[in-house]
Amino acid sequence: MIYDIINKVYALEKSGKRVVKLNVGEPDWLAEPQAIDAAMQALRAGKAHYSSGAGEIELREAIARFHTCESKNVVVTPGCKFGIYALLSLVMKPGDNAVAFAPYWTAYDLMCKQLGCQLKLVPLRLENGFAPDVAALEAAFDSKTKIFIMNTPNNPTSKAWSESQEKQVIELCRKKGVLILADDAYRDLCFEPRGDRALESGVVIATTFSKAFGMTGWRIGALLADEETIKKLTAFNQMTVTNVPTFLQLGALKALELKKETEAKARMLSLRRAQIAARFLKGKLAYAEPDAGFYVFPKLPDAYAGDGVAFANALIDEAGVALVPGAAFGDYQRFFRVSLAASDDALEFALRKIVEVAEKSR
Amino acid sequence: MIYDIINKVYALEKSGKRVVKLNVGEPDWLAEPQAIDAAMQALRAGKAHYSSGAGEIELREAIARFHTCESKNVVVTPGCKFGIYALLSLVMKPGDNAVAFAPYWTAYDLMCKQLGCQLKLVPLRLENGFAPDVAALEAAFDSKTKIFIMNTPNNPTSKAWSESQEKQVIELCRKKGVLILADDAYRDLCFEPRGDRALESGVVIATTFSKAFGMTGWRIGALLADEETIKKLTAFNQMTVTNVPTFLQLGALKALELKKETEAKARMLSLRRAQIAARFLKGKLAYAEPDAGFYVFPKLPDAYAGDGVAFANALIDEAGVALVPGAAFGDYQRFFRVSLAASDDALEFALRKIVEVAEKSR
Repeated sequence: MIYDIINKVYALEKSGKRVVKLNVGEPDWLAEPQAIDAAMQALRAGKAHYSSGAGEIELREAIARFHTCESKNVVVTPGCKFGIYALLSLVMKPGDNAVAFAPYWTAYDLMCKQLGCQLKLVPLRLENGFAPDVAALEAAFDSKTKIFIMNTPNNPTSKAWSESQEKQVIELCRKKGVLILADDAYRDLCFEPRGDRALESGVVIATTFSKAFGMTGWRIGALLADEETIKKLTAFNQMTVTNVPTFLQLGALKALELKKETEAKARMLSLRRAQIAARFLKGKLAYAEPDAGFYVFPKLPDAYAGDGVAFANALIDEAGVALVPGAAFGDYQRFFRVSLAASDDALEFALRKIVEVAEKSR
Repeated sequence: MIYDIINKVYALEKSGKRVVKLNVGEPDWLAEPQAIDAAMQALRAGKAHYSSGAGEIELREAIARFHTCESKNVVVTPGCKFGIYALLSLVMKPGDNAVAFAPYWTAYDLMCKQLGCQLKLVPLRLENGFAPDVAALEAAFDSKTKIFIMNTPNNPTSKAWSESQEKQVIELCRKKGVLILADDAYRDLCFEPRGDRALESGVVIATTFSKAFGMTGWRIGALLADEETIKKLTAFNQMTVTNVPTFLQLGALKALELKKETEAKARMLSLRRAQIAARFLKGKLAYAEPDAGFYVFPKLPDAYAGDGVAFANALIDEAGVALVPGAAFGDYQRFFRVSLAASDDALEFALRKIVEVAEKSR
């Protein structure tokens, strides 16, 4: 569904139309120039051979420091998505299941299917601000449940759980012997900074250079876990991608040195955009105000005749604005995801059009 | 086993010892400066966003031209190893098998195991110059055989089959309804140039920028196949690695423009090194003279007391020369793989030591 929209956007742009692409899940900023310089210097210096499947030791040490663990607890992967795929491949056998709250990131489901496994979904509700439902989660676990995927701040809602909510969920998983994958892709972008998650037992952390650092296209992420799991993930890297390009890892290392400033900038920008969105959407469309990142996940008014797919199509056809229908994230047919990572002008234009088209059938 | 040696090398180097690393499967040359410049320009220009899971269209078109097909028949992957893993993931179910001749590249076996599948091996013999045994291959196929992995020129023997040998094998696979994966990683380095393999039905081609182009650490390869298979491989990319970094693909595109010159240089250098090896090994150790690439796969003299593992350990301990025991490539306990991708001095030193240590127990 996400790719249907992308293909439509490509076709429109090819025909010469301008599209405001609020469908894409990536920031509109790029890596810091110092990170780019560091990568290029390393490439020039010939750091372009096969290298460690675990990742460059300096980068692993730097990542570990932020998560209160050691380099032996870190593996560098070509994007944290690949890390997640590797982990699921290693912990699940065909017939097993993973559990996640919905709305959820589509990739989890595709991965489980590819591995002959199931993704069991526990739906959360806008009416509760998409707060985690611990009782429903417990009911979803069965003897085949190997892993719970915890994604907070969430894609697509941008809601972040409180510390006590996280604690409750983690304790339940521990009690049930279910491994937790903390997909923290958007944690750096919490409007109220959370700090980095300290590694703890029973939890695997997925982290990325794609979002706050603006390095989506570099394809660098990392998984943090107990030493045994990291050894297995390293072997999985060696068997599949061999290693992440060394010169890119050295660029990421430089980016990490600038983490505090980079995150502060990205966070302020994201907050400002969330405020712009609020200005247009509040009182017009029901949605949960974001705690982080650059998505909002509004609901269509009851009076709107079609579903999210019809709305997304109408919006792209009538206004040249692309977004993703809610059905791409679970049983949320009347919702849609808007990425706010765009210039003020484009964003304001698009938000105005979103409200206009949504209110049309009233 | 390959990794045991690598770890031993790391430990020795850390303790300050110099090791001649003839164990590593990569060239000692690097990408052409123009390719490096193109990648860096693209990174500077901001070509560092999410991009097509299939690969940049210009690169796909350029690759397709060399293989007499179209861009829709090409998917770019982070190394052709990843492409091979993706293909095996898509065509094999747990319990299925793949077939390959031995000696073979270790990664095939690791991948099959990870997928709950088996790699069935058909051993070839030094006495026959490791020529393909078509009757034995036919006997190895069963109802669970989904794919035959054809690796010529071969890692570790560097033997390349004749066109008629290839044809025989391909025809057998077609007759049996077994998909062929042509792992052509070393084809560009045939001492007698073969030209690029034209895509034909029933065959998936794996090709790479790692070997002749000297771009191992860039992690770029490609698979060529029918359009339906490419669509599935593209979806697999999207689900796992998303895409290969765009700026690196644009560097690879520039490298491809220089393919003819780059290959000629790499081929001449490889041939010269094969001649150096012959000078030291001929009449001393039994081995098949290489047709391509940078490996030789000699056999220990009958009089040598230990096996390939003992020999590799003795050599690294006594002479600081690293190579890979034959057992890493199948049931070849008395063999070892030497990579010739080293400076003349290092190579001559190492070859002299190899013969010395091998002859010791005579």
